[in-house]
Amino acid sequence: MSHQLPDFKTNLSDWFNEVVLKAELADYAPVKGCMVIRPYGYALWENIQKFMDVLIKKHGVDNAYFPLFIPMSFFEKEKEHIAGFAPELALVTIGGGKELPEKLAVRPTSETIMYHMYQKWFGSWRDLPVRINQWCNMVRWEKRTYLFLRTSEFLWQEGHCAHLTHEESIAEVEWAIKMYAQTYQELFGMYGIIGAKSDTEKFAGGAKSYTFEALMPNGKSLQACTSHDLGQNFAKSIDWTVQDQKGNKSFPWQNSWGFSTRSIGGLIMSHGDQKGLVMPPNIAPIQIIIIPIPGHNTALSKSQELLKLLENYRVKIDSKEGETAGAKFNKWELKGVPLRIEIGNRDVTAGTVIICRRDTGEKITVKFDNLSKTVAKLLNEIQQSLFDKHKKFTESNTFKADSYDEFKKIMETSRGFISAHWCETADCEAQIKTDTKATTRCLPLDAVEENGKCVRCGKPSPHRWLFGLSY
Amino acid sequence: MSHQLPDFKTNLSDWFNEVVLKAELADYAPVKGCMVIRPYGYALWENIQKFMDVLIKKHGVDNAYFPLFIPMSFFEKEKEHIAGFAPELALVTIGGGKELPEKLAVRPTSETIMYHMYQKWFGSWRDLPVRINQWCNMVRWEKRTYLFLRTSEFLWQEGHCAHLTHEESIAEVEWAIKMYAQTYQELFGMYGIIGAKSDTEKFAGGAKSYTFEALMPNGKSLQACTSHDLGQNFAKSIDWTVQDQKGNKSFPWQNSWGFSTRSIGGLIMSHGDQKGLVMPPNIAPIQIIIIPIPGHNTALSKSQELLKLLENYRVKIDSKEGETAGAKFNKWELKGVPLRIEIGNRDVTAGTVIICRRDTGEKITVKFDNLSKTVAKLLNEIQQSLFDKHKKFTESNTFKADSYDEFKKIMETSRGFISAHWCETADCEAQIKTDTKATTRCLPLDAVEENGKCVRCGKPSPHRWLFGLSY
Repeated sequence: MSHQLPDFKTNLSDWFNEVVLKAELADYAPVKGCMVIRPYGYALWENIQKFMDVLIKKHGVDNAYFPLFIPMSFFEKEKEHIAGFAPELALVTIGGGKELPEKLAVRPTSETIMYHMYQKWFGSWRDLPVRINQWCNMVRWEKRTYLFLRTSEFLWQEGHCAHLTHEESIAEVEWAIKMYAQTYQELFGMYGIIGAKSDTEKFAGGAKSYTFEALMPNGKSLQACTSHDLGQNFAKSIDWTVQDQKGNKSFPWQNSWGFSTRSIGGLIMSHGDQKGLVMPPNIAPIQIIIIPIPGHNTALSKSQELLKLLENYRVKIDSKEGETAGAKFNKWELKGVPLRIEIGNRDVTAGTVIICRRDTGEKITVKFDNLSKTVAKLLNEIQQSLFDKHKKFTESNTFKADSYDEFKKIMETSRGFISAHWCETADCEAQIKTDTKATTRCLPLDAVEENGKCVRCGKPSPHRWLFGLSY
Repeated sequence: MSHQLPDFKTNLSDWFNEVVLKAELADYAPVKGCMVIRPYGYALWENIQKFMDVLIKKHGVDNAYFPLFIPMSFFEKEKEHIAGFAPELALVTIGGGKELPEKLAVRPTSETIMYHMYQKWFGSWRDLPVRINQWCNMVRWEKRTYLFLRTSEFLWQEGHCAHLTHEESIAEVEWAIKMYAQTYQELFGMYGIIGAKSDTEKFAGGAKSYTFEALMPNGKSLQACTSHDLGQNFAKSIDWTVQDQKGNKSFPWQNSWGFSTRSIGGLIMSHGDQKGLVMPPNIAPIQIIIIPIPGHNTALSKSQELLKLLENYRVKIDSKEGETAGAKFNKWELKGVPLRIEIGNRDVTAGTVIICRRDTGEKITVKFDNLSKTVAKLLNEIQQSLFDKHKKFTESNTFKADSYDEFKKIMETSRGFISAHWCETADCEAQIKTDTKATTRCLPLDAVEENGKCVRCGKPSPHRWLFGLSY
């Protein structure tokens, strides 16, 4: 039998924890709420960095590195920002054996420290646009934590740009969230909805936030990354102005956007099954595992030939001793490797191998000569198929609700996205949450104008918002 | 005139600070002792990562990520380790608004936290060798700091491996320091001496440390990276054992090795001159800068053609308005770009460009058709020439001293490496430092056996150590 994971359908959260530990993606750290990302999990992050860094640089963004420590006084300059982040700060109070004159926050996000430097460096329209990104670690002291999904320390990239006009900045906010959606689709094989956050749910200190919301198998919605229009709020809070072409001073328009290791939590849940992980080929640390049947004397050397043949892929041979073929199959299924190649004496003689697809379990016998072509085709098929499946799942679990009763009934019976009219007041938003646990997920970017009425209060509403349970 | 930097020969340390700031490699952070690495400086670190990560992975090392925070109790398990690092720790005492039950150190190095996890994960000889590396930020609360060379926060990689035998571990310690030397030579164009540290200078808690010592233009020696044989010390301190093939338990033999952003400080000093930075082509963020002479109407479009032709290199056009050609030349000389291509109307007509080498100032007129070939040749030449120059400088500033008087005289007049016999006692080492400021840099790996006498006490010594002023 396989690794006896908790039931995927009825107990996703235990399944999730166990699969993360057993597949050696990550482990709990000695410090509560922190985690260790093990090589198999970190390889995912490296593939994400490789893919996304190209897109970021192509957009004209340069990488840099800003300090981990931010003086507390920096946070206090933007009122909403400090109110939002104060409860989650980790504070350094002692350095080199001495009490520090000012407490230092371990960065929970870098707006304040980066813009302090921007103000020093950039004072003219000639210096704009500014486009800087950093890949780094972050700390937010969370009360309830889950591996990958919510940890006190996590890894991410944060882009921070500044423009002369609001239009340019907004265009970039949209570029970023679409670049993330592209990454989710092409690398993660994940579908999701791009949209604007409500005022209560937006970034602390920002003007408007965009999110990419992905539906998980248990019907909860994962806020999978965000892109923020910061308006001129942060520039005003530190009095950073730039001189325009006419010699007038004005506050730059800023944006910031981030994508974190949380995304790996979404990846695990979106495609997993009872046997464990299912990795989309484009992000998979290992795309093909070759298993020479133990004891078959010609299988190993043939495997090494095949390894060479497939060297353009991320491929490994599992020739570990003291394990049965079955145990090996289970191990690599747990780890979600897209393709398994089995090879025994009989296959060597026949000039064939058996290829098994992780996503469907389908087995195909392939001649050596056709192997490379077949592998390429199968990997493409699996990537596309996982995305299609996740998209179909999301669409078939998105429900329209036109009355509050309907809304409540869906929340009780189905779980998923609810598309409903809402008057955009914080009152109704809060009451809907109290009554049904559903929160506003976003106003989809492609929402159509439609004369409707708020499901709760009946006041006019011009478009449907997406509601759901939050991860 | 150029940027009027402080005198390179007589005032290297002011020259260094100004060139780092003016060339926009880095800036001072608001938190004392920390720095911001700006895009031009961070691009150097990205090139280092790209080059070295390949070598590290080829050796069979996997990347992973371990937590930033280490409980204080972890440090206290290895006595020398805590004694060495305690004075430099930054401590988090408050998290999420509450005083923490145990103070958390912001990692100054990750031995203790990583080996805690190794102990949990690896208990059998089948699990060895373990080879894990991480790229991350580090914090050591330094009293006197210098940009890049010694900052309270810095970036590095740290490799941490474990083996069944001491021999295998030692072989890896040597592999690592040689891999670093290769990086210095091929990427940084820097020469240096590999050798063992003295007992006083070795890593706190380790058994033996190897270093790569590079001589700077002011005669000071930069400990440019290190590789440590940890023996079984750390395994013993936490009682981590693995079962060998016969079922016996034994402590694994461990090693660790690190390479940090300090290396960039060495790069800047090793090749710089009165005009600013001189970047070896292999590490240069920009290898070629194309400057269309301002006002020359055909120069810009031709420049774009050349850009296309040279797209396999890291190449940029400087067509910024409102700057003279001279100002542009100075700017890119300050930034150390290896090759400058000047192009004006007359060049377009003649079908030629002028190429200027940053390292020698030499100007060459080249036909368009030969451009690509000439650029390749020149970049190779510059890389090799900078290394040769640094090697020659090091060798001609390495002096043999056979008496204490000779030793003292060299320290007073010449500065540089001193090759001298030493009895290997901490007493003589300390006295030599008090008398001359020189510290032991290393026992070179290739030191020959030689019957000699300690320059200070006259006791027998089997080989010459390298002494020098420490950075």
